[in-house]
Amino acid sequence: MTPDLQDTIANIPAPAPEALFRAHLDTLTKPLGALGRLEDLAAQLQTLGLTDLRKAAWVFAADHGIAAEGVSAYPAEVTRQMVLNFLSGGAAINVLSRLHNAPVHIVNAGVATALDSAPTLRNTPIRPGSRNMLHEPALSEAELNEALALGIECAAEASAKGFNLIAVGEMGIANTTAASALTAALTGRALYPVTGRGTGLDDAAHAHKIAVLEAVLAHHEPHLTTPEEILRRLGGLEVAAMTGFILGCASHRIALIIDGFISTAAAACAVALAPQVHSWLFAGHQSQEPGHRILLAHLNLTPILTLDMRLGEGTGAVLAMPILESALALYTQMATFTSAGVSAATAL
Amino acid sequence: MTPDLQDTIANIPAPAPEALFRAHLDTLTKPLGALGRLEDLAAQLQTLGLTDLRKAAWVFAADHGIAAEGVSAYPAEVTRQMVLNFLSGGAAINVLSRLHNAPVHIVNAGVATALDSAPTLRNTPIRPGSRNMLHEPALSEAELNEALALGIECAAEASAKGFNLIAVGEMGIANTTAASALTAALTGRALYPVTGRGTGLDDAAHAHKIAVLEAVLAHHEPHLTTPEEILRRLGGLEVAAMTGFILGCASHRIALIIDGFISTAAAACAVALAPQVHSWLFAGHQSQEPGHRILLAHLNLTPILTLDMRLGEGTGAVLAMPILESALALYTQMATFTSAGVSAATAL
Repeated sequence: MTPDLQDTIANIPAPAPEALFRAHLDTLTKPLGALGRLEDLAAQLQTLGLTDLRKAAWVFAADHGIAAEGVSAYPAEVTRQMVLNFLSGGAAINVLSRLHNAPVHIVNAGVATALDSAPTLRNTPIRPGSRNMLHEPALSEAELNEALALGIECAAEASAKGFNLIAVGEMGIANTTAASALTAALTGRALYPVTGRGTGLDDAAHAHKIAVLEAVLAHHEPHLTTPEEILRRLGGLEVAAMTGFILGCASHRIALIIDGFISTAAAACAVALAPQVHSWLFAGHQSQEPGHRILLAHLNLTPILTLDMRLGEGTGAVLAMPILESALALYTQMATFTSAGVSAATAL
Repeated sequence: MTPDLQDTIANIPAPAPEALFRAHLDTLTKPLGALGRLEDLAAQLQTLGLTDLRKAAWVFAADHGIAAEGVSAYPAEVTRQMVLNFLSGGAAINVLSRLHNAPVHIVNAGVATALDSAPTLRNTPIRPGSRNMLHEPALSEAELNEALALGIECAAEASAKGFNLIAVGEMGIANTTAASALTAALTGRALYPVTGRGTGLDDAAHAHKIAVLEAVLAHHEPHLTTPEEILRRLGGLEVAAMTGFILGCASHRIALIIDGFISTAAAACAVALAPQVHSWLFAGHQSQEPGHRILLAHLNLTPILTLDMRLGEGTGAVLAMPILESALALYTQMATFTSAGVSAATAL
């Protein structure tokens, strides 16, 4: 662990105790607990000191060496093409970010082909895609540290811009393969239940993806003894950058809404490195990738939405923003039984 | 059925076929089906011709004679107190409606005590609460027709104001008891699985509520042969008004987001009277009331949100609005594979 990463982790603040905020919720004009999960979300936001929400989305893109093994329904050049789509505002994340007032920031953490500079692009590829983890670690130690540092720098930028609630998304052809490998290594689960169809594999291609992953894990297994080694060997440039970003944001008192399977895999790496980051996480949604459910359960996170999505980009995280805003508004704006002159429940 | 109700039902338009809209979704820059339920919602909005969303919330309030049997954790005067809370802007529905730009309209369909007039209140109580259905039908035939007509008039008002997407909510102490009775009668299910704890009954009070409902159903059973009779005998003034409102809105090309258990019971009565109204319904959320799940399954409606709420007022329906807006924005604003120059999936 670099001194920079150690400092970041040491600076993650603890949340305030929840009891006072729960007590306030119980004074509002509604039956006890009747706002369900919104009460949990409101209380969590209060423990983090988030009394107004300043939203953004951060999307990390990179290619994956493992794509060479035919594990995705889409060709690897789609990573770069989708980054261009992000930059021209036509992707799903752009539409949702405009609608919900959460400006998108794109980070090139390692797309295989060079990208021209653009105002909303942090164009800092660490290398042209990760290495093929079937044969070697996805990242060298230096590359892992650079990717973590890139994420930490992005968090400092987010803090300087005044954001306090950020959706964490990604783009990278073959990155559900990396997420499945990370999930298996972090949770100890077998590969079959944590490996899905990504962007749309058929049965044969799905079986091939699992076979590739079995070979990957067999190759690395003796070395998967620390979170850093798991992330370095099985992750990817955008995954490691997201891990650094999540840790960095929490150190700046920025709450994160994690998105789908890959974003959650990065969060799981962050929690493995620094369990106290957990307080700063919201799970935006439950994706259709089967490993995502396992990973959320491993992290003891309850998704806000379940809409059968499997797109990534941060889309499911941005979609959860109006729910979090609703929770906060209810907490701060509802009348109390006393102020509204409403009778309490009858003693039963 | 009155001529007015017959005309309303006859005027409910059929939706457009879905295939063209599904085909457009498949051209957008995302893997096939990757937006999950958002694609279903977008397609449904398109079939209804909703190309921009003009939102509102309509909340119907009334008291229930059955409240005298001790079936609620709250005293009956809370109905009126909560209407006053709605009018002064302090209730959960007010907070959410302000946040999501869906102005609230309150309808006094039959609160037990008189209410002063107010700008956002339609103050037209049909009688001071429904009758006690343990001993007689909740409504006379004339009262049922008046309540249905009130809802149809509110729909005309909503249409005149230009709204095309409306959250349907309610307030009425003891109205989960009416909703449970309606659910049992409409679905043929036993009372235990459709009867919940409402605003917070303990075990003994819950058992008492079920015993009261058993007596209610035993009393009315021979007469529960048509949707009108089920609604008249087991419903309530706000439930019947919501039923008329739902049918009326659909006849004006206004889509409805139904809310929790009571709102959905009204929708089930509307569908029983006019199956074609189903196309105009969205289920905002899955409430914690056990009967709600059964009723949504009976209606073949999939809730947009599941947040363990059990408040009513239209809160779960308004919360679903940003999801519907997101679905529409994605449909209309996303780039296509061709326009963005993104490669299609590889033939597998």
